Amino acid sequence: MENIVKVAVIGGGSWATAIVKILCENLDQVGWYMRNTNAIEHIKTEKHNPNYISSVEFNTDKLKLTSDINEAVQEADVLIFAIPSAFLEKELYKLNVPLNEKIIFSAIKGIVPETGLIVGEHFHNIYEIPFDHIGVITGPCHAEEVALERLSYLTIACRDSNLAKTVADAMSCEYIKTKVSDDIIGSEYAAVLKNIYAIAAGIAHGLGYGDNFQSVLMSCAIREMRRFIKRVHKIKRDVNNSAYLGDLLVTGYSVFSRNRMFGNMIGKGYTVKSAMLEMNMVAEGYYAAKSAHMIISKQDCKSKTPIINAVYNILYEGKDAKKTFKKLTDKLD
Amino acid sequence: MENIVKVAVIGGGSWATAIVKILCENLDQVGWYMRNTNAIEHIKTEKHNPNYISSVEFNTDKLKLTSDINEAVQEADVLIFAIPSAFLEKELYKLNVPLNEKIIFSAIKGIVPETGLIVGEHFHNIYEIPFDHIGVITGPCHAEEVALERLSYLTIACRDSNLAKTVADAMSCEYIKTKVSDDIIGSEYAAVLKNIYAIAAGIAHGLGYGDNFQSVLMSCAIREMRRFIKRVHKIKRDVNNSAYLGDLLVTGYSVFSRNRMFGNMIGKGYTVKSAMLEMNMVAEGYYAAKSAHMIISKQDCKSKTPIINAVYNILYEGKDAKKTFKKLTDKLD
Repeated sequence: MENIVKVAVIGGGSWATAIVKILCENLDQVGWYMRNTNAIEHIKTEKHNPNYISSVEFNTDKLKLTSDINEAVQEADVLIFAIPSAFLEKELYKLNVPLNEKIIFSAIKGIVPETGLIVGEHFHNIYEIPFDHIGVITGPCHAEEVALERLSYLTIACRDSNLAKTVADAMSCEYIKTKVSDDIIGSEYAAVLKNIYAIAAGIAHGLGYGDNFQSVLMSCAIREMRRFIKRVHKIKRDVNNSAYLGDLLVTGYSVFSRNRMFGNMIGKGYTVKSAMLEMNMVAEGYYAAKSAHMIISKQDCKSKTPIINAVYNILYEGKDAKKTFKKLTDKLD
Repeated sequence: MENIVKVAVIGGGSWATAIVKILCENLDQVGWYMRNTNAIEHIKTEKHNPNYISSVEFNTDKLKLTSDINEAVQEADVLIFAIPSAFLEKELYKLNVPLNEKIIFSAIKGIVPETGLIVGEHFHNIYEIPFDHIGVITGPCHAEEVALERLSYLTIACRDSNLAKTVADAMSCEYIKTKVSDDIIGSEYAAVLKNIYAIAAGIAHGLGYGDNFQSVLMSCAIREMRRFIKRVHKIKRDVNNSAYLGDLLVTGYSVFSRNRMFGNMIGKGYTVKSAMLEMNMVAEGYYAAKSAHMIISKQDCKSKTPIINAVYNILYEGKDAKKTFKKLTDKLD
């Protein structure tokens, strides 16, 4: 397929690598920015990303690799951001080419710590990108399964339905089915909140709660997510679609989820700091809990979000996990 | 607590054993019928059910064990049925004491094969029990976790809210939280349908589909369940409550679920017959798929139930699992 648009992927991690693999199924050329110059050299010569889902072999003729974010942005019409939200501002700070003519798709599932905003709102508020030029790539999708070409479903959300369709077409292939949506705000919040619920699932597991409880926790989490999203952006949506419920389940039930693992350590008695040190990274849900809590306070809807409150109190207020979850169990049903 | 009502549990399996354990937390006396006289003797002398969740120790002073179903029924006001639906008629056939003055609660999650009805409707249509005297005990609850006293949530559904409350109170304890509902039809159908979806989850796993797909399958299953139940009994309900979604998840994600295991064998290439022989039992979802298919045909809503159709076609029409699921994937999103 001829490139209808010039796409560049921003990021060198596993989800960015999976997205580049998917795009290469359809496009003749894919721009790919990452900081790590050694990894770029390795991909060019060995056809594999040495650090993430390294089983994936690339047709390097299609890749336009660069460690210069300005070059990547300059040459593309559509930018797909797939870096941890904690590093987004650090990368954008390097830019000296304008962003305002670009189409920005976020494959980041997190809150920008500097502004406490979801990525779409961050680009809109800080970089003045019109909402029509902002999109979200979401859905239940472990990058590792994309590497194995196991069938996965993505939701491409954009208010401009033609643009959503264009990106969806570029990402549809034998092992990826796509669906379009116009709920950019709701689907981004869902992707963010599910990491908090995955931390909750991990804490519950670490504390010794079983599968019966886990299923009640997830069933309460999707109802809480529905209330939260309705409060921040009220439109007609079905939270049982795969972009919301599916994404919650794949993360909440995955023993590989970093957020669930982080929660599990907290449940087992690690302090927040030692869990972070042990994992050598920060789980996205950690920032998400803080931002969600800020929004909840602003919206004055604390009684509607017992699970997020519990996670926030444990992570930021030094509350005891066991006692906090004991109290939480009375609010679930 | 003094017995407000005289309760008898009908059944000697793991769920029946778990329910007796729960009731013994609150009641002074619990009637308990099972066919197996050796098991009764063992419980009387050793305080444990030798065959199911045998770690549970009973205060035998509270148990009124009998292998005579007429005796159990005669002495009780409330009967809790917890036997496989396939054996229900065989047991009821033995009755010579009338049922029509009794309160009947079903903890059976299945379809009565002889009539193709859910248990509540079966008791209503065949035994003329008024719907106000029929209740359902449901919710995501592996008996094994009750044995371990891991926190679980049950939903007690009955149109008579006082009756629902009475049974809920009798079952609430440190490790069981209860919720009441008036949706006896919907919650029974949910409990039945989830076994079909667990078979689907098993087939998908057996065919090599991964976690990404599984989460999409479950997210489509809850939407399909919502459509199905709405069609057969339209009232206002939230299928994201734990009696519906929670029950679906605990079964669909459990590697111990017999329905999921049965599906897994089909996905791996076993014929239906050989999977049944190998498991030495029939999974409840096998009958459920047939009845659900009958209802779907009667209601003319086949286009709304692609997952049930796929499972039915594989189990009863000899369709190839791999090809059937490949087609199914196009209908999911």
